[in-house]
Amino acid sequence: MMNEEHLYHDLYKMDYEQLDLLAQKMRKYIMETVYSNNGHLASNFGVVELTLALYRVFNPEEDVVIWDTSHQSYVHKLLTGRWEEFKTLRRMNGISGFTNIHESKYDKFGAGHAGTSISAALGYFIGDKCNDKKRNIISIIGDGAFTCGMALESLNQLKYMNSNVKIILNSNDMSISPNVGSLSTMLSKIRMKKNYKDIKKNMKDMLNDSEIGQDLELVLKRLKDAVKYTIYSEPIGFFEDLGIKYYGPVDGHNIRDLELFLRLLKDHEDGPAVLHVLTTKGKGFENAEKNPDKFHGVSKKTNNQNLSYSKIVGHTLSYIQKENFITFTAAMKDGTGLDILEKTNPNKIIDMGITEPSIVTTAAATSLAGVYPVVDIYSTFMQRAFDSIIHDVALQGIPGLYLLDRAGLVGEDGPTHHGVFDISYLRLIPQIEILTPLNGQDLANMIYTSVKEKPSKPRFIRFPKESTTKTVDEILLNLKNINLNWKYIKTSNNNTYVLAVGTISNTVKKALKDYDLNIIGVRSIKPLDQYVINDLKENADKIIIYEENAEKGGFNEEIYKLLKGKDIYNYGIKDEFITHGSRKELLSLCGLDEQSIKNQIESIMNINNKKVK
Amino acid sequence: MMNEEHLYHDLYKMDYEQLDLLAQKMRKYIMETVYSNNGHLASNFGVVELTLALYRVFNPEEDVVIWDTSHQSYVHKLLTGRWEEFKTLRRMNGISGFTNIHESKYDKFGAGHAGTSISAALGYFIGDKCNDKKRNIISIIGDGAFTCGMALESLNQLKYMNSNVKIILNSNDMSISPNVGSLSTMLSKIRMKKNYKDIKKNMKDMLNDSEIGQDLELVLKRLKDAVKYTIYSEPIGFFEDLGIKYYGPVDGHNIRDLELFLRLLKDHEDGPAVLHVLTTKGKGFENAEKNPDKFHGVSKKTNNQNLSYSKIVGHTLSYIQKENFITFTAAMKDGTGLDILEKTNPNKIIDMGITEPSIVTTAAATSLAGVYPVVDIYSTFMQRAFDSIIHDVALQGIPGLYLLDRAGLVGEDGPTHHGVFDISYLRLIPQIEILTPLNGQDLANMIYTSVKEKPSKPRFIRFPKESTTKTVDEILLNLKNINLNWKYIKTSNNNTYVLAVGTISNTVKKALKDYDLNIIGVRSIKPLDQYVINDLKENADKIIIYEENAEKGGFNEEIYKLLKGKDIYNYGIKDEFITHGSRKELLSLCGLDEQSIKNQIESIMNINNKKVK
Repeated sequence: MMNEEHLYHDLYKMDYEQLDLLAQKMRKYIMETVYSNNGHLASNFGVVELTLALYRVFNPEEDVVIWDTSHQSYVHKLLTGRWEEFKTLRRMNGISGFTNIHESKYDKFGAGHAGTSISAALGYFIGDKCNDKKRNIISIIGDGAFTCGMALESLNQLKYMNSNVKIILNSNDMSISPNVGSLSTMLSKIRMKKNYKDIKKNMKDMLNDSEIGQDLELVLKRLKDAVKYTIYSEPIGFFEDLGIKYYGPVDGHNIRDLELFLRLLKDHEDGPAVLHVLTTKGKGFENAEKNPDKFHGVSKKTNNQNLSYSKIVGHTLSYIQKENFITFTAAMKDGTGLDILEKTNPNKIIDMGITEPSIVTTAAATSLAGVYPVVDIYSTFMQRAFDSIIHDVALQGIPGLYLLDRAGLVGEDGPTHHGVFDISYLRLIPQIEILTPLNGQDLANMIYTSVKEKPSKPRFIRFPKESTTKTVDEILLNLKNINLNWKYIKTSNNNTYVLAVGTISNTVKKALKDYDLNIIGVRSIKPLDQYVINDLKENADKIIIYEENAEKGGFNEEIYKLLKGKDIYNYGIKDEFITHGSRKELLSLCGLDEQSIKNQIESIMNINNKKVK
Repeated sequence: MMNEEHLYHDLYKMDYEQLDLLAQKMRKYIMETVYSNNGHLASNFGVVELTLALYRVFNPEEDVVIWDTSHQSYVHKLLTGRWEEFKTLRRMNGISGFTNIHESKYDKFGAGHAGTSISAALGYFIGDKCNDKKRNIISIIGDGAFTCGMALESLNQLKYMNSNVKIILNSNDMSISPNVGSLSTMLSKIRMKKNYKDIKKNMKDMLNDSEIGQDLELVLKRLKDAVKYTIYSEPIGFFEDLGIKYYGPVDGHNIRDLELFLRLLKDHEDGPAVLHVLTTKGKGFENAEKNPDKFHGVSKKTNNQNLSYSKIVGHTLSYIQKENFITFTAAMKDGTGLDILEKTNPNKIIDMGITEPSIVTTAAATSLAGVYPVVDIYSTFMQRAFDSIIHDVALQGIPGLYLLDRAGLVGEDGPTHHGVFDISYLRLIPQIEILTPLNGQDLANMIYTSVKEKPSKPRFIRFPKESTTKTVDEILLNLKNINLNWKYIKTSNNNTYVLAVGTISNTVKKALKDYDLNIIGVRSIKPLDQYVINDLKENADKIIIYEENAEKGGFNEEIYKLLKGKDIYNYGIKDEFITHGSRKELLSLCGLDEQSIKNQIESIMNINNKKVK
């Protein structure tokens, strides 16, 4: 029935009833896919109507539509030639859960981190201007990403550069964590003040209702003046002062209304403009809930009831909540496990939204004011605070604990989200400590010790997306002060030493259980364990290093240098970006799973044997 | 006469005439010091009255006054116990040109990079709140820094967190480069619209002029209501929507008026507020100009007429301006030499203000739109775009040229400004190229070749704050397409090889002119020159590496790993932050000057000889 290759071509032929049916069909398909592949359900359900209306008004091939963060781009993908492939969403060799310029010509800019779309839109505008090219450039951004520094920086440039970039500000009821900041408050106020239904009633009074949807151009012509005075008569100071025309708010689930407003936006030729769209995350999910047999509900998969490292963080901090500390999160209370602490003590947690550079600098000053800061941010997002770490934390030598969750390969979220660079980008910074716990208990103990002792140097702890079979009680009962010594996991008289950084030491231990060699668990990259280093200097002939981090700049390079002259080998993430797939698949792809490790050691031993012969 | 140790204590005893005299004295002292030590003259001249008024109203010990970027903190330093030491400004072992928490208890937060002060203020607020402590927290920020993402991110938090942080927005006529963005336009409009003189006249009409300066408390009480209706009756939408009370504008060179407004600000207890101060950068400089014999004028030192690398960039790009490219700067047109290009072709340069993360992402999109982007940012500031480089440029594999000026030790600006981390933080990123030109001509050729050939991989060129004795014409006449091969600077049959990265190869060449060994100039860190690597594998016994970059994560580690088994030594920046001082002093301090290099090689040779014996 539908031209699924370029489904968006057919949209303009459909009437609103057909569009509603398509929306329903898409929600069902997305739900089924997310049910089996995991992914972002609610955010995509929120933009079904918006995307349909968008591609009736704008052309996804000729125009530049940039999806901020792009976790909400599933409908876009379905409309632009990826209906069948969508079944492979987030799977190894399948399509990405985000936009990707190498996946489709309709993906005009890739994303994964939030707040980049306005900068990118500006870039397209600059390029087009140089080339004397005219096309519509649209950034679609949620209110969570909207308060990122990058988004605000570029917002300030739109008018100044005489651009006509259009922004669709998708303001939804909930976000990953509830939105924070005054802009969020402002947008809510608009939402409440400008009661959409009343406005719409006014509009309808001015027009013959039946006209809507018929001769759209004529209606729009008449609507424009009406709208001017009913809807956006009250200037929104924030946007006005930035030179940006405000349109809205409009119901993001009414395709007809959306279309009207999108056409207004398209016709706005006098500089940049923002269309404020009100959507409900997860819209349409209730219907699904009524058909459980068909949809099974999309609760989290339950095959892994193990205690995640993130939850260990939350429980540990909750357990020692009486200590003098405060935690910071970047719109990731749940993901980081800090929701657990929040439940027991909401005063202990500050959510500053997706503003990593600010958070780290704020944390440094909090420390100067006498409160120990605990900053909990995913490894990949901490990259954004790189300069704050150098310039505000390390250079000033300010105490604080920085937790890098999701260090290493994260799985299905893919290359924008892998936390495989942190050892490299932290190791180069003077005056800090970098810790790599060997397991969940070790992680808990490191946090416990740090918060209790408040070491004078800023301390970074990186840990992967893993879990433990231990219970919360077991972890908490075994909390104790620890030092940073590396751990002799297995000792032997053989002169071969395997150094395994952090949790990969467990895989190494299992893989090499039948081998006669030494295994050392590396628990601290900075400082190094000088005792072990000396031991290696004296006794090791052959050293094999494992780390779930980029080889470039990684721990391995430290060892090659420190123990020059030894026969050293190392395994880590090669100098390339790693695709998406399950964590298990990716570890295997990168040669960091049990079988690969066995093969690698076997091969090194063979080389050795040959050498001996 | 004055208690110079705590000069600020005496301020409240002075009348306005005495204050004016002090201001004059300070300007003279600052000018003399900057004349001999270099530094920031104009920005400090701009805030003399502001700082005097500030410390009559707020207490720099008890309150938290945070100077954004802090290049304008000289008056603050003079008032807080550093009058005598000020003579050592920016000199090795002398006081820093920026605030530094380890230099003085009055420096509440260190800076150097722009836009961090509001985040820091927020951190102090959070800490104080936890500690049930009350004190005034003030951020003083210029309009250039005000549009940094970090500043805007934190601005959005001030009201939301129920803080009472106060911001003094110092809006001056000029900045490093003219300010950019709509906020800057907004502030100019306020400046023009709210004609300060008219306002003041209104105020005076309402009050008996003679009262001002007498019973200040009484006058202020009466003033408050008056001011409310005359000065800030018109809400500034931008601030209002962020929940921040706007006061101003006030003449930043009138201590009396400043004091009134600062007291209003101090008394504002209902949340965050901003005081908009109008200053003139370099205020008072005209007077100095009239007394040339006393002040000699503070033109740039003229003992070095050599052509700086920055200017080479400008001239080269200007020479090839007909090529399809566009350059981006972060408020540093002059510093980067792009002002030269601007003069010949203003359409070729875009100044996005101090917004490095946005600039890099915008540049990537500009490239996708078909125009080759050339981004020119100091090495230390490029740290702020670290995630944009990974997430938007490298991961997407988008062509573009990124120039890292001031790589290596920068001299008197000190640790916040040294560009000693870039090789390390770039080398870990897949899919990019990192080039290290050997001299000015090489830099010019690399730029020339890159813009002409537009290589498919994003390319980074790092170069130090150096100059050449060649003329512009010589450079331009010798422009040619080059490859990325490393250069055999000196060859020998000896098996000792010295690898020198970039321009330090010139120092190495001079230092080792009498030694029988091989010297190779490393022109590319990524990719490596495989021919040379193979040559080293086959022929080198001993390898000595020089790089003006952090040893941790630096080029040297690549070589230790790649050429394991060889006898390798390396010299670079140790794992610590390097103080301020002249570039020459610092190179010597770090063991990277001619004499040190000679000594190091001598020592390695001796070790060798001993070993041989």
